[in-house]
Amino acid sequence: MQPDLKDKLEAFPLFAAHAQQWEPELASVCIKRFAKDEIVAHHGDSAAMLWLVVSGWVSLQRVTPDGKEISVGLCTQGDLFGEAGLFPHANYPYNAIIIHNDTELALIPAERMRALVQHHPQIAQFVMQDLGGRIAHAQLKLEHMSSLSAPQRLGCFLLRLCQNHKQGTQLLSIPVEKHIVASYLGMKPETLSRSFQHLMQTGVRVKGAEVEVGDVQALREFVCGSCGESGMCETEEQLTTGTV
Amino acid sequence: MQPDLKDKLEAFPLFAAHAQQWEPELASVCIKRFAKDEIVAHHGDSAAMLWLVVSGWVSLQRVTPDGKEISVGLCTQGDLFGEAGLFPHANYPYNAIIIHNDTELALIPAERMRALVQHHPQIAQFVMQDLGGRIAHAQLKLEHMSSLSAPQRLGCFLLRLCQNHKQGTQLLSIPVEKHIVASYLGMKPETLSRSFQHLMQTGVRVKGAEVEVGDVQALREFVCGSCGESGMCETEEQLTTGTV
Repeated sequence: MQPDLKDKLEAFPLFAAHAQQWEPELASVCIKRFAKDEIVAHHGDSAAMLWLVVSGWVSLQRVTPDGKEISVGLCTQGDLFGEAGLFPHANYPYNAIIIHNDTELALIPAERMRALVQHHPQIAQFVMQDLGGRIAHAQLKLEHMSSLSAPQRLGCFLLRLCQNHKQGTQLLSIPVEKHIVASYLGMKPETLSRSFQHLMQTGVRVKGAEVEVGDVQALREFVCGSCGESGMCETEEQLTTGTV
Repeated sequence: MQPDLKDKLEAFPLFAAHAQQWEPELASVCIKRFAKDEIVAHHGDSAAMLWLVVSGWVSLQRVTPDGKEISVGLCTQGDLFGEAGLFPHANYPYNAIIIHNDTELALIPAERMRALVQHHPQIAQFVMQDLGGRIAHAQLKLEHMSSLSAPQRLGCFLLRLCQNHKQGTQLLSIPVEKHIVASYLGMKPETLSRSFQHLMQTGVRVKGAEVEVGDVQALREFVCGSCGESGMCETEEQLTTGTV
């Protein structure tokens, strides 16, 4: 086993919440470091592995027959991908591409993960809750395509990166190329640039690869007034719901 | 127990695939008939129930603070909703509104469903597979917002309703108000009307509450050439992937 494996994994609820059940499986888990542009999963390949992002960024991308590249997911620290591996005979529905140098991923063999889920109802419950949260997030993104303007969609993305910081100033590190963020948010790169300009009025400033959110509360007021999740969203101060 | 309950439920894989495990639980499941416009779940309410659509149509809707109604899901025969009930202390993330008269729903108490999932790994696996399929579908819909035109998105919706009919002519019954279908597809009602007109060139005709797909294969050629799932989608003849 890698010497620091256990320490690193314990930072993540997937492992920490069920440390005892994971213990005999850790020998089959490893952490690897990847360089920008490496492809760790190919669309259509048999799903033999699940990944947890330990640090860095991964884009889940699909290519249309007419050559458009579309990001259907942006994963960073704590995010799990390759969830097709939960099901026997399933294939990856996207390419998973490293989009930031020195991205560290924990590799979990799909077969071991399926065995854990089968033998430990608590882990099955945890995984279901994670899947349920993703459905809710995808449904919210779909709603936002109709209900929010492009600057508001960008604002929501920034608020999610602010995570538990509910007010004041936040400096976010987003070392991801603009065209990937734009694709993930369902807009053209030039619309993303205009949206950043628009958000200056709420105190958002782009500083190289970092973005300063000058006033989290002001940004929330600009974004959340048009969102059906308003008052029940994880970016807000008062949580009133469970994960889904 | 309702006399025809077992017969009706056995038509659905959720019950049929694990009939033995469900047997002692069926006393707590019932089938009820609802009228158009009844609301069976309210956004933010504690998720005490899961529902399976036995027949009819249900729209999962959210209302933005500025009063826009957005359909984040359209459920018909065989679809499960209220999946927040899988998780303790979770709330419904939408209103579930009956949109067709005489809609029949099977009501499954969330607590019983959670107990089943906890005690039977096969049912947990089935539920996870269902959740995984929804994530894949939501991601595909998000991709389509960028990659497909409005007529193509409508065409994809019709192809899904054609289900296993891979060629020839199909008559689809879509007794759902146009503004709800438009909202579900992320377009304005007038765009939906123009999209139906556009699809006439592939043999699609609106006949009252029914839609005739004159040539499934022609419609598929029009839609799927711009889709990243092309060749691996459940609407196509050759399935090459699992559920996700």
